[in-house]
Amino acid sequence: MLKEWVKMAKPEEAELNERLEKARAELSARQVQVKEKKLPVMVMLEGWGAAGKGSVLGKIIKNMDPRFFKVATMGKPTEEDLREPFLYRYFSKIPEEGKFMFFDGGLLEEVTNDFLHDNLDDQGYRQRITSVRRFERTLSDNGYLVLKFFFHISEKEQKKRIEELKSDKNTSWRVSKADEWQNHHYDKALEIFDRYLFDTDQSKAPWYLIDSKDKKWAELQVTEYMVRAIDTALSNEKQSALLVQNTFELLPIKKLSEISLDKELTDEEYRKELDECQKKLRKLHNEIYRKRIPVVILYEGWDAAGKGGNIKRIASALDPRGYEVHPIASPEPHEKARHFLWRFWTRLPKDGHIAIFDRTWYGRVMVERLEGFCSENDWQRAYNEMNEFEKELSDWGAIVIKFWVQIDKDTQLARFTDRQNTPEKQWKITDEDWRNREKWDQYEVAIDEMLEKTNTSFAPWHVLESNDKKYARIKALKTVIKEIEKRL
Amino acid sequence: MLKEWVKMAKPEEAELNERLEKARAELSARQVQVKEKKLPVMVMLEGWGAAGKGSVLGKIIKNMDPRFFKVATMGKPTEEDLREPFLYRYFSKIPEEGKFMFFDGGLLEEVTNDFLHDNLDDQGYRQRITSVRRFERTLSDNGYLVLKFFFHISEKEQKKRIEELKSDKNTSWRVSKADEWQNHHYDKALEIFDRYLFDTDQSKAPWYLIDSKDKKWAELQVTEYMVRAIDTALSNEKQSALLVQNTFELLPIKKLSEISLDKELTDEEYRKELDECQKKLRKLHNEIYRKRIPVVILYEGWDAAGKGGNIKRIASALDPRGYEVHPIASPEPHEKARHFLWRFWTRLPKDGHIAIFDRTWYGRVMVERLEGFCSENDWQRAYNEMNEFEKELSDWGAIVIKFWVQIDKDTQLARFTDRQNTPEKQWKITDEDWRNREKWDQYEVAIDEMLEKTNTSFAPWHVLESNDKKYARIKALKTVIKEIEKRL
Repeated sequence: MLKEWVKMAKPEEAELNERLEKARAELSARQVQVKEKKLPVMVMLEGWGAAGKGSVLGKIIKNMDPRFFKVATMGKPTEEDLREPFLYRYFSKIPEEGKFMFFDGGLLEEVTNDFLHDNLDDQGYRQRITSVRRFERTLSDNGYLVLKFFFHISEKEQKKRIEELKSDKNTSWRVSKADEWQNHHYDKALEIFDRYLFDTDQSKAPWYLIDSKDKKWAELQVTEYMVRAIDTALSNEKQSALLVQNTFELLPIKKLSEISLDKELTDEEYRKELDECQKKLRKLHNEIYRKRIPVVILYEGWDAAGKGGNIKRIASALDPRGYEVHPIASPEPHEKARHFLWRFWTRLPKDGHIAIFDRTWYGRVMVERLEGFCSENDWQRAYNEMNEFEKELSDWGAIVIKFWVQIDKDTQLARFTDRQNTPEKQWKITDEDWRNREKWDQYEVAIDEMLEKTNTSFAPWHVLESNDKKYARIKALKTVIKEIEKRL
Repeated sequence: MLKEWVKMAKPEEAELNERLEKARAELSARQVQVKEKKLPVMVMLEGWGAAGKGSVLGKIIKNMDPRFFKVATMGKPTEEDLREPFLYRYFSKIPEEGKFMFFDGGLLEEVTNDFLHDNLDDQGYRQRITSVRRFERTLSDNGYLVLKFFFHISEKEQKKRIEELKSDKNTSWRVSKADEWQNHHYDKALEIFDRYLFDTDQSKAPWYLIDSKDKKWAELQVTEYMVRAIDTALSNEKQSALLVQNTFELLPIKKLSEISLDKELTDEEYRKELDECQKKLRKLHNEIYRKRIPVVILYEGWDAAGKGGNIKRIASALDPRGYEVHPIASPEPHEKARHFLWRFWTRLPKDGHIAIFDRTWYGRVMVERLEGFCSENDWQRAYNEMNEFEKELSDWGAIVIKFWVQIDKDTQLARFTDRQNTPEKQWKITDEDWRNREKWDQYEVAIDEMLEKTNTSFAPWHVLESNDKKYARIKALKTVIKEIEKRL
């Protein structure tokens, strides 16, 4: 792309100023429309070192209302960043609807930099490209406007700028070693930039190449492209996106109706096993901490299936400094205003840590599906989006353990009634629980479909037969132990 | 993609049959909805030799109404095909709205085959990928549903099938040398298939990989994916697509108001030049015929600017066996039912031949824009679609000559009045001409924008100052001569 690209001629000064004034006013006016239409706009500014991204960005936002945008300066991943999945620092910064997010630097720079400095081989590069494409597709499929700008300057121009910056004490700090390296290996860098641009040019998230020899001209190009793309996005009603094929290995899994729930433990067996398992898990927690292996444990199940008590038995075996339990309720406004996976991306553990989710992203294909909180296309797309999300976790090195806590309908009724009749348990039962219970059959269809479509080899489901809670707790502990031991 | 792909498990026979029956019925029902919603559906069936594409296709269409679909068997390009641009045989076969077109084999097979047999180097391969991406994007941006299936079998399975086919006289003809070559070089072929799939997997035209070890199972996969994708497409209203950046070199060009129209020739000069130019052109026509260079000449201009007479002076110098004039009126229903470029793709000359278009695809950004025959997003997208179209012509080796025939408003009035008052010219003037004249200023804005945005280095505009028709005719002849001579 870059190599064949022929730049547009820069207009004369007078025309440039006139167009710039117009474009600035237009972008400024679009902010309110973007807000009203609830359009999330993600703008990636990438390119050569010293190409002037920062200064153009400065000009653009000067023209905007701070309530409508945020800026994320990406740079090289920090040590903290490196303890999270590759996409973490990007996904956690996606804009909410009606807002702009500007990324100063980002995916292109990170991936090409790793490739140039031999932190990625060809296969690793390709894996990154796959992640980037998935990330951008997930966003654009969900109505995000994804704009990607590449700031281009020549080798000579870059050299000139670097020297100018270095010659002044006040600016010399802005020249990084990486910039200098890049200038000395310009052709090599050009080659990989070109490859990355080609590999990630998507019809719903296309690249715009920016001639940035002149800063005002660069600002004009970016602003005009932004206005044009925003207008296009504003003119569309919410769209359904083509569903992507599942290409992950799916393991066979029983339907809920095929699960036998008669397993149980005596109190004595339970106490003995509990003690042994918790001791073992405590040791393992130590080991994964030292080896920096992240663990993500998911709990889904029927109301009153015993998730809370089950989680407690896991958690009480863990060192409190090394785990966190995330109870997931309905999303708050700022969460609803973003892609549904956002509130889970931002709750991921650091490596060596454990995150336990009490209810999870699978709400998308259960309650959100059944209550019509999202469109059919949304929840149908979600199976793949969730598998891809868990693939990122798995590629990062995480152990992903998904529990479905199963009880039968009679057991639920008995527990509901008990809660209703026991004063200190009454807070645990609501009208909503009863309403959900009425939809048992619809839920069962949705859950069976969910289990079938997301039972991937890298993040399979484990069913906890929980008519007898004791049995379920021990099985959960043993499963966690087994999965961790497998990895060590 | 192919290398990491994990196939879905084939269902048990009973389930398979049940699902197949259901899917067939659904696809059958979708035909009418596709027709009502005017959705054009393009289905590409690609994959390994002997993978069973043909037999699955046969099953699928057995289930459909012949009024709703067509099949194009692509195979290797014929000698005739090779005299046209690479994309010609694909673009000329796109479905009309409300209809299905099945391609048996196609782009993947052609491009990878050329690459495997050293007819394409890396750069050539990349150029093809660019063409394919543009083709698919153009279609999906215009509301086409583009479905791409890759039929996959293992080396062993392919070998078995080839041997089975060969062992029977009645089927041995179906095994091509290419199939056998492929099986002997399976890993090499896998490598390039995988690369092609990765390079052309687009969010609006994604690949679906089909496990085709079992034919009934393959049919089920294809049918289910088709139904699902059709449902998604049917649920959307017409969408605006993001505009792609122009990355072609645009030459500076004068605005219409800056063109001086006082150039003229005496009758004597005209006769002399006409004679000389036509003789020269006659010779050149012979040469381009021998060298198999295609020539595409476009005429656009104001009503009564003198296009017809101008074309006549070119045409009369040419050998009638080697050229064709295409007068372009409003599109007919079957043309309107396809992408606007379709009726031009199908009128391209063979190599060594000349096609002259009296009005052209530029109608999209003039009359269709001003009369609201297409949406704003449609005509804004068209600049790039037309540049890309002409790039395909240019890459093919064509000389593309675009004439804008310019007169001033007074001259038009004089000619209109003359036509009105001269009985044998009255057929040439209609109420519509007068109505268009009233929109002169709006047209001028649109034309200036068109000239600016499509004046590419590989297909630049030539203005013919035609207040004096004689001058314009000689300039046209000289331009054609010069452009051909440049190439020889």
